[in-house]
Amino acid sequence: MIDLRSDTVTKPTSEMRKVMAEAQVGDDVFGEDATVNALEDKVAKMFGFEAGLFTPSGTMANQLAVNVLTDQGDEVLIEETGHIFNYESTAASHLSSVLLRPLQGTKGKLSADLLKDTIRGQQDWEPRTKVIALENSTNKGGGCCYTEQELAAISSFATQNNLSVHLDGARIWNAMTATETEPTFYSRIADTLSVCFSKGLGAPVGSMILSSQENITDARRMRKMWGGGMRQIGILAAAADYALDYHYPLLKDDHRKAREIAEIIDECSDLLIDLDSVETNILIFDVINTTAEEAVQQLAGEGIQVVPFGPRTLRATFHFQIMDKDLQKVKEAFRIIFN
Amino acid sequence: MIDLRSDTVTKPTSEMRKVMAEAQVGDDVFGEDATVNALEDKVAKMFGFEAGLFTPSGTMANQLAVNVLTDQGDEVLIEETGHIFNYESTAASHLSSVLLRPLQGTKGKLSADLLKDTIRGQQDWEPRTKVIALENSTNKGGGCCYTEQELAAISSFATQNNLSVHLDGARIWNAMTATETEPTFYSRIADTLSVCFSKGLGAPVGSMILSSQENITDARRMRKMWGGGMRQIGILAAAADYALDYHYPLLKDDHRKAREIAEIIDECSDLLIDLDSVETNILIFDVINTTAEEAVQQLAGEGIQVVPFGPRTLRATFHFQIMDKDLQKVKEAFRIIFN
Amino acid sequence: MIDLRSDTVTKPTSEMRKVMAEAQVGDDVFGEDATVNALEDKVAKMFGFEAGLFTPSGTMANQLAVNVLTDQGDEVLIEETGHIFNYESTAASHLSSVLLRPLQGTKGKLSADLLKDTIRGQQDWEPRTKVIALENSTNKGGGCCYTEQELAAISSFATQNNLSVHLDGARIWNAMTATETEPTFYSRIADTLSVCFSKGLGAPVGSMILSSQENITDARRMRKMWGGGMRQIGILAAAADYALDYHYPLLKDDHRKAREIAEIIDECSDLLIDLDSVETNILIFDVINTTAEEAVQQLAGEGIQVVPFGPRTLRATFHFQIMDKDLQKVKEAFRIIFN
Amino acid sequence: MIDLRSDTVTKPTSEMRKVMAEAQVGDDVFGEDATVNALEDKVAKMFGFEAGLFTPSGTMANQLAVNVLTDQGDEVLIEETGHIFNYESTAASHLSSVLLRPLQGTKGKLSADLLKDTIRGQQDWEPRTKVIALENSTNKGGGCCYTEQELAAISSFATQNNLSVHLDGARIWNAMTATETEPTFYSRIADTLSVCFSKGLGAPVGSMILSSQENITDARRMRKMWGGGMRQIGILAAAADYALDYHYPLLKDDHRKAREIAEIIDECSDLLIDLDSVETNILIFDVINTTAEEAVQQLAGEGIQVVPFGPRTLRATFHFQIMDKDLQKVKEAFRIIFN
Repeated sequence: MIDLRSDTVTKPTSEMRKVMAEAQVGDDVFGEDATVNALEDKVAKMFGFEAGLFTPSGTMANQLAVNVLTDQGDEVLIEETGHIFNYESTAASHLSSVLLRPLQGTKGKLSADLLKDTIRGQQDWEPRTKVIALENSTNKGGGCCYTEQELAAISSFATQNNLSVHLDGARIWNAMTATETEPTFYSRIADTLSVCFSKGLGAPVGSMILSSQENITDARRMRKMWGGGMRQIGILAAAADYALDYHYPLLKDDHRKAREIAEIIDECSDLLIDLDSVETNILIFDVINTTAEEAVQQLAGEGIQVVPFGPRTLRATFHFQIMDKDLQKVKEAFRIIFN
Repeated sequence: MIDLRSDTVTKPTSEMRKVMAEAQVGDDVFGEDATVNALEDKVAKMFGFEAGLFTPSGTMANQLAVNVLTDQGDEVLIEETGHIFNYESTAASHLSSVLLRPLQGTKGKLSADLLKDTIRGQQDWEPRTKVIALENSTNKGGGCCYTEQELAAISSFATQNNLSVHLDGARIWNAMTATETEPTFYSRIADTLSVCFSKGLGAPVGSMILSSQENITDARRMRKMWGGGMRQIGILAAAADYALDYHYPLLKDDHRKAREIAEIIDECSDLLIDLDSVETNILIFDVINTTAEEAVQQLAGEGIQVVPFGPRTLRATFHFQIMDKDLQKVKEAFRIIFN
Repeated sequence: MIDLRSDTVTKPTSEMRKVMAEAQVGDDVFGEDATVNALEDKVAKMFGFEAGLFTPSGTMANQLAVNVLTDQGDEVLIEETGHIFNYESTAASHLSSVLLRPLQGTKGKLSADLLKDTIRGQQDWEPRTKVIALENSTNKGGGCCYTEQELAAISSFATQNNLSVHLDGARIWNAMTATETEPTFYSRIADTLSVCFSKGLGAPVGSMILSSQENITDARRMRKMWGGGMRQIGILAAAADYALDYHYPLLKDDHRKAREIAEIIDECSDLLIDLDSVETNILIFDVINTTAEEAVQQLAGEGIQVVPFGPRTLRATFHFQIMDKDLQKVKEAFRIIFN
Repeated sequence: MIDLRSDTVTKPTSEMRKVMAEAQVGDDVFGEDATVNALEDKVAKMFGFEAGLFTPSGTMANQLAVNVLTDQGDEVLIEETGHIFNYESTAASHLSSVLLRPLQGTKGKLSADLLKDTIRGQQDWEPRTKVIALENSTNKGGGCCYTEQELAAISSFATQNNLSVHLDGARIWNAMTATETEPTFYSRIADTLSVCFSKGLGAPVGSMILSSQENITDARRMRKMWGGGMRQIGILAAAADYALDYHYPLLKDDHRKAREIAEIIDECSDLLIDLDSVETNILIFDVINTTAEEAVQQLAGEGIQVVPFGPRTLRATFHFQIMDKDLQKVKEAFRIIFN
């Protein structure tokens, strides 16, 4: 099977496994794992933040960010297709007692304009608007990326209104690849950033939250409370470090693969895709004469896995373990089924 | 000042005060207050529910309903202008760990159509859709009411999809007055109903949650945990009982007053109102050449209080303590200021 | 029946009802109820705090205090028989995510000595000790009171260790009566104080939390979230105000009644009481040859209600609505049953 | 340094690293990691439970157990030195809204006798006793183990009183080694069991919760919400599997090492140890003429790390990476410093 369901399905390569097998480790609950300490430092410096904290998942990194930026009674503004609103169960309610207020943006992106007149909380009975949660690149928005201007405008709005900005950078690597943004730009427009080493980078496990030292100290305590304190994780950190050095540069090629398939989809009479929205490694497209569920079955019949993203909508995701020969098969399958 | 800010500002009349002063009381935490017990029975029977529980506020009644109908990880569908989403701080997150998912309806109302394709929760990472929360009449929807057909269709959708229905009936009395619905109808389409004795009914304090005996037993325990267990509340229950008997029949007249002013507003060249949406005691209207804030000031200058409901939107609310002579003054003020 | 179960069963007198019936009211959610505003000012000044907030129950007042003094991850030290640990369900866990750590004190009282070596929280995995919660007079401790020296020593320990002190003063009136302490003393040794107007003071409903203006502003927001925001509560505040002026001075006589019965109990061969611990209006005593449950039945047979407080332990509580003729009956009943 | 601080500091061996490097993996969030699936099956079968769930930490395994066995308002009985009460921050409050009620047992163990008269919850204001949380072997209890008779008596008490039993088996492997109990015994006396592959078993990361299929399905959902859903964890599961097969049999030797040192400690005039309580790999002992902190410094001066466990109390822990030559050095150091 050619698995286009998600870039989370990437598996460690033999080179990565070798690095893991040789990693120096220690007890990270005691702060004594040299490999994870070095990775936290490296990534924090890379993005210009004071500190970082390794987490078992992107969900935990995002939720730690929400937690350290808010108090009970606070409200988080988020685009309605955002990961934190759709794919993290009710964690923000459960773990931080905040209200998520979804706004309808474009391709998963908010804008400074959209945020106008959203601030509330002067009255005791109102949620108190406190955080703007962004995602870059967007997942349900089809891998679209914010421009630096867009982010700067939102950040400026946040500052004027005394709000914090969290950036869910599960796929920030893809965004940086597509927009050629310097990593340190993000620490200038966001208070917290989460990044993921699994997904397109191909490490088996792990995300990181980046922020000020004070926020990371708080996050460390909450990570332990939520059961995310692990012991000899140098093994996982070594994989993440390898992924950064060796797989991050490959993302450009994933984007090329996605675009090639997008162009095939665009030619298929039974499919609809907005080519302008294909910026990174994710394709979101509609079927015309069938349902998403049936299309998933048809593609599975040809050895290709994709996921339904709505009654008539599908998602296909590309990563470095999709080979060019796989790509040929995918192209043929699409041409056969949807023409 | 003529106070049109809200029907919550109604004050107990001398007759009501007399009834309160003579009320039989007991310790309600021990279940020994005969007056509140009788009121809980009376209102439960009136609506066809098994049991009722008196609460210090409508917020507590609504939140108890959300709590007994859900578990951690569940999702509540609600119209985006709903009271529970806008005016109860982040209580549903904080007290029940659920996600509120706002949907854009019409005049504060959801519909069975709008609910299609909203159910989710099969995956571990998705919130699990569990409750539809309705409001009748709608507050931010301008006092609009559901028809029985609309409610029946939503209830039927809920049953088919294994969802519960909560009805926020803070102004159910206005809705029943406007639509001439039998009270027992609501227990057929909702699992929990909250009603309010303050607001248009004019009791000083108190709401009630109505449901099955099992849910009310749970709610009673949570009410105590949240600090809503009160002692000799027969005094408050007596006021609520009086309000039901003597003030409820007056609501029809409140609606007449609202309509009279609505027609004046409709004639004002600087104001915009949708006369079709004036169904009960609430008017929501826009100013054209000024801001809501300025309009509030201008009206205050004429001795009239209304509340801003958006950058150019105002709300005026009518109740039995707005006298016909007040109404005259209001009409004149509107004519002077907005023509 | 002569009801010695609790001082919560007191009922409003006709004089109190008259005051309630005439009370000036407003919408307290908007801060416009002059009677409750005046009461909050009066009680805050009385105790030397900056501000006060009326609540529907003592549980809510205590829990608001815990909430404003703590963050997630904090620990509250409390004597193991304390109200907050035993009679407020799991509210401190649910509403504030804190750990209650019970310590075994004497007669419900903690001491500076007992608090030594209890502070923890340097490690991420430890609860962070933050608050000492005291109760004065103690309920399960048999109505015992702290001396000023004891409180000063605890307060000094708290200051040295950067802890806050909450004082559950549900029966602070009894404590002040017994120990002749100036009310302003309490604001010098505690960050938050809760007081109750129901119980021995005889108002039907209501407690108050007292603290700094900042804490009360926070508490006001949380009160709304928990459903404790009420409307025209001047009626309840008027009763509380009356209770303060006219019933507070009567507590001395309740203590006299308790002592009279304590001495009878001391003479009963089948009962055990520690006369030294009888300081206010509560008696806790043991039965020797029977169970608490049977003793409750036997007393009920003589028209007297008490509550079981353990397998062989009973509690009797005195208040201004226990008349001297009731006392005679109680004495006779004890002599008949337990000799 | 010879590190006796904890058995959590064990590091993966080269054989274990080899197994990890070759492990088959898949996306465990999608349930597709064959190695972790096999391990969950293997361990569940071993203990006689229906299902198991791999977690990033023992804290998460314990907290998932508390969560699936309770509702808001419930109470968990636990020995006062228990891990869940002392070393998991305020997680049980924060994540499950329950009250932890610590009871003073012996060497970290509860008993059926001690549990008598602890059940409460009939009243709305009382926490509702629901779970007995045990730890075996005990950590702060010095590695002591329950006998089967003791566990059976507690289980029987639980059944009679409609309570659930959770067993924190972070060191169940040590307990089984010491008491020669069959693993399936534990599924007969407990509803949920947590086990740890880190600590004495020496895997780098990972614990597991074991229970009924229904509870594990719930736990899986909550694990995702708390951020514990990880991707290609076959690598970690392979290490755990190896640890079970190859390191579990070595625990007997760890216990021998602990006993050897215990006997030296017993001979030291400045130290106090209860030899009868030395059952597994943990030693808890007191210093007589100095403080715990000083003793930690003195031992560090000799290249030995232990942890303070009270003002005059120390803990030393043994595991398979403490070699016999280390043991000699430890013996000499103790003799020099504490005689």
